[in-house]
Amino acid sequence: MEVGEKVVYPMPSYVLYRTVAQIQAANPVEIPYDETFTFPLQALIEAQGAVTFIASPNSPLGNAVPLDQLNTLAAELKGILIVDEAYVDFTDQNALSLAQKHNNVILLRTLSKGYSLAGLRLGFAIAKPSLISDLNKVKDSYAVDAIATLVGAAAIRDQAHKTLNVEKVLRSRSMLKHQLEALGFRVWPSEGNFLLVRSPQQSALKLQQSLKNRGVLVRHFNVPGVEDKLRITVGTDEQNEFLCRLLKEEIMTSQ
Amino acid sequence: MEVGEKVVYPMPSYVLYRTVAQIQAANPVEIPYDETFTFPLQALIEAQGAVTFIASPNSPLGNAVPLDQLNTLAAELKGILIVDEAYVDFTDQNALSLAQKHNNVILLRTLSKGYSLAGLRLGFAIAKPSLISDLNKVKDSYAVDAIATLVGAAAIRDQAHKTLNVEKVLRSRSMLKHQLEALGFRVWPSEGNFLLVRSPQQSALKLQQSLKNRGVLVRHFNVPGVEDKLRITVGTDEQNEFLCRLLKEEIMTSQ
Repeated sequence: MEVGEKVVYPMPSYVLYRTVAQIQAANPVEIPYDETFTFPLQALIEAQGAVTFIASPNSPLGNAVPLDQLNTLAAELKGILIVDEAYVDFTDQNALSLAQKHNNVILLRTLSKGYSLAGLRLGFAIAKPSLISDLNKVKDSYAVDAIATLVGAAAIRDQAHKTLNVEKVLRSRSMLKHQLEALGFRVWPSEGNFLLVRSPQQSALKLQQSLKNRGVLVRHFNVPGVEDKLRITVGTDEQNEFLCRLLKEEIMTSQ
Repeated sequence: MEVGEKVVYPMPSYVLYRTVAQIQAANPVEIPYDETFTFPLQALIEAQGAVTFIASPNSPLGNAVPLDQLNTLAAELKGILIVDEAYVDFTDQNALSLAQKHNNVILLRTLSKGYSLAGLRLGFAIAKPSLISDLNKVKDSYAVDAIATLVGAAAIRDQAHKTLNVEKVLRSRSMLKHQLEALGFRVWPSEGNFLLVRSPQQSALKLQQSLKNRGVLVRHFNVPGVEDKLRITVGTDEQNEFLCRLLKEEIMTSQ
C-alpha cells in the first residue's frame, strides 16, 4: 500500500480491515450495507479501491456473497480484490474459480474456523503465481514457525476430520437457531459458525453485559445496522443450552 | 514509522534492517564501520534516526558494543534506540540496565540462537511499559500461536538447559577458531555463535561457492568491509571438522 490509497470494504464486516488499513496509513473507505443486508455491488465498484476486502461469508452478518457478484466485482475493479473466506467451510460455495480466473483476486483462508485450530494462528492465501510473487516481496521472512507448519499441513490433509467437525457445528447451529427463535429472538440466516440475533425486548448492549457478568462472551458491534443485534458463536450443545438458560432468565427478569 | 523517516544502523550489520525499513517506506541511513570495526558512535548520534538499530553482538562482525557507548547513544538520540540482542547469550554483557533506565530503548531477544529454537520463530522485546504500550497499538493481533507460546515459555524457564547449550557452542567456537587459524585463516574475535574469517588465498565468494557445491553453507556479504570475508556459523564438532577438511582441500587445490 502507498500512503492514502483506498482500502474499500462493506460495513458491517470484519473489524480488522479498518485497523490494518490504518496501520499502513492507507485510506479506509466503508460502504454501508442497506437494512436488508443486500451486497452493495455497485457502490463497491464505484469506490475503485487499491484493495477491496470482501468477507464471504461475512461476519457478523452471516451471509455469503453470490459468486456471480464477486465475479463482476473482480472484473470491474482495477485494484486487488481480497475474498476473505475465513468461514468458507460452513457454506457450500467458494471463490476458488475466481482466483484461478482473475489476475487481481486473492482468497484468504484460515485454520481458525472450520479446522477449529484458532490457537495455531495459521492462514494462507490463494492467488495466481504472479500475485503471490508480488506478495512475497513485502512478506516478513520466516513468518510461520516449524511446528505450526507441520500441524497445519497435517490438519489440511485430514479433510475427513474437518468435515466431521464442520458437520457438528452446523447441527449445533441449527439447534441453537431453533432454541433462540423459541425464546422470541429474530435470527438471521447464517453461513458462518455464528448467529446474528436480535432480542425481543432488551438492548443488545445490555444483554451482552448481562451475559458477560455470567461468564458468557458474545459480540456486540457498535456499527450502523447491527447496534441492536448480537453475534453469538455456536458453542458445544452444552454451552448453547447454558446460554439459552441465561437468556430465558434475562427475558423473564426484564418482563 | 512515517514515510521517509530515517532508520539508522551501522554497516555491516543484520541485513534485514534495510528490508524492514524499505517495506515501511522509511529512509534507511547506513553508517559505515571503519576498517578496524570501531563502533561509529559519533556518526550514529549525528544521524539522529527516528529509529536506530544496533545489533550487539553484531553480525557478521561478531563484536559487542561497549555498554557505556550504548548508554551515550541512548542519551543523545531523540528517537528510539533498538538494541538487537539476538546473540546476547554468547557474550557476557547485556543492555538490560539501559532498557530499565532510558525511555527510548527497546531490547530485542530471540529464541533462535542461544536456545537453538530457530524453527519456533519466536522473539520478544524488553522496554519500559509506556514504550511497549505504544508498540501494542501497531502490533498485529494474535501474532504468536499457542504452541509456540507454551514451548517458548518452557524454554525460557529452563535456563540450565540453555546454559549447557551455549557452553557447548562456545567450546566448539573456540575449537573451530584454532582449527581455522591453523589453516592460515584470519579469524576475528567473536561474541556470537559464528566466526568472521578471511581465507589466506582464495576470494571469499569463490570459497563460499566451492563449499556450497560440497553441501556446506556459509555466508558471504557483498558489503564494504566484509566482501573478502566469510561468516561461518559454529556447527557441531563433526560439522566443523568436515568444514575444515573441505577448506584444507580447497587450499591445497589452489596452491
